Amino acid sequence: MVVVMAPGATPEDVARVVARVEAAGGETFVSTGVSRTIIGLVGDVDAFWQLDLRALPGVAAVHRISDPYKLVSRQHHPERSTVWVGSGERRVPLGPGRFTLIAGPCAVESAEQALEAAHIARSAGASLLRAGAWKQRTSPYAFPGLGVTGLEILARAGEATGMPVVTEVVDPRDVPVAAEHADMLQVGSASMASVGLLQAVAETGRPVLLERGHTATVEEWLMAAEHIAQRGNLDIVLCERGIRTFEPTTRTTPDLVAVPVAQAASHLPVVVDPSHAAGRRDLVVPLARAAIAVGADGVAVDVHPHPEDALCHGPQALHGAELRELARAVRRLPAALGRQDTPAAYPRS
Amino acid sequence: MVVVMAPGATPEDVARVVARVEAAGGETFVSTGVSRTIIGLVGDVDAFWQLDLRALPGVAAVHRISDPYKLVSRQHHPERSTVWVGSGERRVPLGPGRFTLIAGPCAVESAEQALEAAHIARSAGASLLRAGAWKQRTSPYAFPGLGVTGLEILARAGEATGMPVVTEVVDPRDVPVAAEHADMLQVGSASMASVGLLQAVAETGRPVLLERGHTATVEEWLMAAEHIAQRGNLDIVLCERGIRTFEPTTRTTPDLVAVPVAQAASHLPVVVDPSHAAGRRDLVVPLARAAIAVGADGVAVDVHPHPEDALCHGPQALHGAELRELARAVRRLPAALGRQDTPAAYPRS
Amino acid sequence: MVVVMAPGATPEDVARVVARVEAAGGETFVSTGVSRTIIGLVGDVDAFWQLDLRALPGVAAVHRISDPYKLVSRQHHPERSTVWVGSGERRVPLGPGRFTLIAGPCAVESAEQALEAAHIARSAGASLLRAGAWKQRTSPYAFPGLGVTGLEILARAGEATGMPVVTEVVDPRDVPVAAEHADMLQVGSASMASVGLLQAVAETGRPVLLERGHTATVEEWLMAAEHIAQRGNLDIVLCERGIRTFEPTTRTTPDLVAVPVAQAASHLPVVVDPSHAAGRRDLVVPLARAAIAVGADGVAVDVHPHPEDALCHGPQALHGAELRELARAVRRLPAALGRQDTPAAYPRS
Amino acid sequence: MVVVMAPGATPEDVARVVARVEAAGGETFVSTGVSRTIIGLVGDVDAFWQLDLRALPGVAAVHRISDPYKLVSRQHHPERSTVWVGSGERRVPLGPGRFTLIAGPCAVESAEQALEAAHIARSAGASLLRAGAWKQRTSPYAFPGLGVTGLEILARAGEATGMPVVTEVVDPRDVPVAAEHADMLQVGSASMASVGLLQAVAETGRPVLLERGHTATVEEWLMAAEHIAQRGNLDIVLCERGIRTFEPTTRTTPDLVAVPVAQAASHLPVVVDPSHAAGRRDLVVPLARAAIAVGADGVAVDVHPHPEDALCHGPQALHGAELRELARAVRRLPAALGRQDTPAAYPRS
Repeated sequence: MVVVMAPGATPEDVARVVARVEAAGGETFVSTGVSRTIIGLVGDVDAFWQLDLRALPGVAAVHRISDPYKLVSRQHHPERSTVWVGSGERRVPLGPGRFTLIAGPCAVESAEQALEAAHIARSAGASLLRAGAWKQRTSPYAFPGLGVTGLEILARAGEATGMPVVTEVVDPRDVPVAAEHADMLQVGSASMASVGLLQAVAETGRPVLLERGHTATVEEWLMAAEHIAQRGNLDIVLCERGIRTFEPTTRTTPDLVAVPVAQAASHLPVVVDPSHAAGRRDLVVPLARAAIAVGADGVAVDVHPHPEDALCHGPQALHGAELRELARAVRRLPAALGRQDTPAAYPRS
Repeated sequence: MVVVMAPGATPEDVARVVARVEAAGGETFVSTGVSRTIIGLVGDVDAFWQLDLRALPGVAAVHRISDPYKLVSRQHHPERSTVWVGSGERRVPLGPGRFTLIAGPCAVESAEQALEAAHIARSAGASLLRAGAWKQRTSPYAFPGLGVTGLEILARAGEATGMPVVTEVVDPRDVPVAAEHADMLQVGSASMASVGLLQAVAETGRPVLLERGHTATVEEWLMAAEHIAQRGNLDIVLCERGIRTFEPTTRTTPDLVAVPVAQAASHLPVVVDPSHAAGRRDLVVPLARAAIAVGADGVAVDVHPHPEDALCHGPQALHGAELRELARAVRRLPAALGRQDTPAAYPRS
Repeated sequence: MVVVMAPGATPEDVARVVARVEAAGGETFVSTGVSRTIIGLVGDVDAFWQLDLRALPGVAAVHRISDPYKLVSRQHHPERSTVWVGSGERRVPLGPGRFTLIAGPCAVESAEQALEAAHIARSAGASLLRAGAWKQRTSPYAFPGLGVTGLEILARAGEATGMPVVTEVVDPRDVPVAAEHADMLQVGSASMASVGLLQAVAETGRPVLLERGHTATVEEWLMAAEHIAQRGNLDIVLCERGIRTFEPTTRTTPDLVAVPVAQAASHLPVVVDPSHAAGRRDLVVPLARAAIAVGADGVAVDVHPHPEDALCHGPQALHGAELRELARAVRRLPAALGRQDTPAAYPRS
Repeated sequence: MVVVMAPGATPEDVARVVARVEAAGGETFVSTGVSRTIIGLVGDVDAFWQLDLRALPGVAAVHRISDPYKLVSRQHHPERSTVWVGSGERRVPLGPGRFTLIAGPCAVESAEQALEAAHIARSAGASLLRAGAWKQRTSPYAFPGLGVTGLEILARAGEATGMPVVTEVVDPRDVPVAAEHADMLQVGSASMASVGLLQAVAETGRPVLLERGHTATVEEWLMAAEHIAQRGNLDIVLCERGIRTFEPTTRTTPDLVAVPVAQAASHLPVVVDPSHAAGRRDLVVPLARAAIAVGADGVAVDVHPHPEDALCHGPQALHGAELRELARAVRRLPAALGRQDTPAAYPRS
């Protein structure tokens, strides 16, 4: 950590910073420049950060150098991690050397719809089934999801098609029941910074699919992951699903460079959700290809048997034929890129 | 609502839209232009929105016209509302014709600190005391607040100084205990879109101070308020506390034009929090003056007996002298602007 | 175009809009809804836009429907265009069914540096040489480029390696001399909205590489292209080079979805510049792969014989070995994606 | 300046940085921490910046400490500056201790319209007349301004009403003729980063009204001013006119906190343009009041004799009655704020 003093800081101001850091068990290196003094801090950076040195007289700025996250950082864990979802012979890996396709309907609407979507997903090569029982909707007048009934339907559709299931939770009070029915819990972009929800999810021990907030930096995303990790759960998969920009023709702007940026900063797997990011069916396949090419560990897409009747985000759901086109890209592209991927999309045959 | 058909849409495509709207009980007006057909919809716009007409073949775009929020809209409730906080002779109004000063420490740290800050606030003219017992922190290694102990301390400081108290809740599971101790519950910017929290807060019947999300539009802010209103609680005060922009020298950018924009769209009172918005003590008084001048119904500021020792956001907390400077602006400016304000800041003398 | 009247608009307000539109030669369709009247306009939309109907009493909003750009729109020109750069046997195509690699140093620094960079680019498969003689720098104290001397050096490096050359212009007064020496003129992101520069460049008749502004929407980018097209020059190639977002670890955020979005809206070719977009060498190859996968018609990258000594943006310039890795992706990926690309990167052997 | 080495940097990497800085005439202070080495640099920071130390092996980051701008910085020029516009007895000051009202029509449309608008402005208390002869329009099909004819009309309207005139230039080739007719030249937000235009304007010796770019940080705005100052022209007035945000109901979001932020960083005067910032007439007066309250040195507003017929931005232009309401605020507010302002709005009576 580096403390930059203001041009007019007095020797007493410098001494005050030094004393405070040393009282917290740190060492200081004072460099007196032409117009400014700089104090380097060595020791427990988190303790120093708590001192709020910026509030002291004569301090112009405080720069933090090491990562503010630790457990999810690649600095101390250089090997990239693999997260396993599901149990027994249905276990599915997400991580380096694999490419995993996650698919399903945006929302569970009925037993028929969920099962039909699961079959489409499965036959196109998906290995994880995702669908929502609770939807975080902007409007109180929009379809809120089927709740616990939806969870039960989803679990049955997963069993019928041999896929572990992923579902989103939006309220910490629903986390225990969700963990009973689902193999992986998703924290959506609007909840990324909800510490109570992150803690509740962490404590179930289930793997977590953590979406990036629409305006979160990569560091803020990793800090959200750190909240989960700090409760002892490191089975976290990061999901990039678009950032808010000034472009109105897509719902958000998929940030594909965030994939290699997050993979360089953290050991956690990173997947991309092109359906929610763009909100337009015609862009899902090109984006999924680009996600593979940029190095993502998987993609998550919406599929619906009848998108034009969907209760939630129909315009972004793929038809079966489009999903098969995507599946072809999943089979061919990794090899063309020189990746030695185990096709996680086909775990058992 | 207006449905815009694509240039190549067929008469069958148009007929399909018409049929679907009519099946939902609506009327349609079809205008066939040189290169496009436009269909006007009259009837229950929310029902039409659920139809997801954008997913139908031949549809290029769907424009919604009336406000998506209803209960908080000024369209159907032209008079601006006043929200009362506290009970008995400690009741404090927020709304048109008043200007209300809310002040207190960012976080409750100890009984002494809370009481000392409350006295500073009170003697400078504040009528509501605000302090945090739970803090939504980016880092799991930062001070998280004192929890229920903090609530108890805050309630006593409010009683000692004769002010109703406001406190933030971040987890729906904490809402019942918070409602026992506090007169008004705050939903912070990071939680603005957390539907579970909005519903839990609404159901306590306590007035709500609803911060705008850092990247929320005014419409999204009002939709969050609508989630509260839809559960039967209309005692909502909107709080503008800065939006995320590209400017790095302030924590966020206070969006003062949002005050008249929100007041034109909604009947709810609107206050500004210049302390959290800017994050810099030197900007709080100029911003508070500007908030009064632009028409805000109140301001909320951080005050701390010893900002340099604060456990949370010390660099933004005012000293007593600065708070008194602010209080002078509160007394003088409204009259200079031709506002006939009852000085809510001095409710009883 | 659709005019939405305010809830309280009077019949006179409606009549005034109708009269004004009809006076301008248009037709109107009035739909009277439950709470609002909507007026559809058929005829010359640009003429209607000039009427500034939004300023009339009772008008709540005016929605434009057709594209505001015409000559660059794909609506009236469904075939995608190919732009040829250079003359004689050095002509290089940019457009559908090709993939074109553009490379060179960010700035011309000396004859030796430019020639060495050109050889690296050429031997790795580039077919267009790009380098800057004038740099639009944030600081007046930064290297501004060699000006006309730089142009002469660049032209000689292009001749020596058999590649047409592209160079950026930043001032309309420099356009004539730039057009004498360069085969294609680039308009940089900071100048995208400079109408005088767009017009000056258009009038040279040279093909134009038009970078997207850092915060421009795709529509604004196409409007800038329309300024060029409207002066009779349709040889325009769009270049996506990153948008400003809240992420600080990359210079900007490359917006890859803008490639298919722009290709759907316009017939012009679209290329991506991953070097300037990310500003980090380690991200250039993954991003270039993703650009190919998402459907770009080419990529433009910085290459420098000695990046660590570069006077401009050294941290983003590829070494020769990295450029060859990129060239391998250029050879393999299009086929894996099912594109039948003529490898424009090797125009003559 | 501070160079932060990567965790795995070798002693050779450190020595290379030290050697390069010393070769450039600087001194270094090396601090070896637990996991990182930090090198403080003392000497000519601009020379160090040119070294591009970030490109060297082992370097993780380079932090600049002093301001990158010098001539416009308040660090070396603590007194705030006053800029005088016009000559002889028509000279008008902009700067501390004054409040200056600038008004006029967005575009010169005809001699009658310009003169009528000038009279409205003058009688409401404006002391500078602003109108555009060239407009930087998004669409090539929009009204581009009257050019030199417009300049001549504007100059005559200024003479007739006794006000110096301000006009925008968008192309460096038009600067000489604009400087013949206008007392102050405006550089618009879309041109803020156009170095050629900044230099051309600087060299006329006329005072410059420099708008902030829609997505520029305050530092980038001051760097644009530095380009002007570096050519020897320090008569620069900064104009805040809105930043691009996600809010769609106003054209841009006026950033009022930028006023005290820029005044703290630079000695130049700062004014606000609420008309272009918000684009809505109903918000101009509240915003102008807030601009005064936050400490702006002036405001610039659009006024038009018949806003509903304006060829440019009619919906934001004030009528005469609204301008008089604004003028009342200009007279009363500064005193209520304790400012001892010379009413620059009435320079001669």
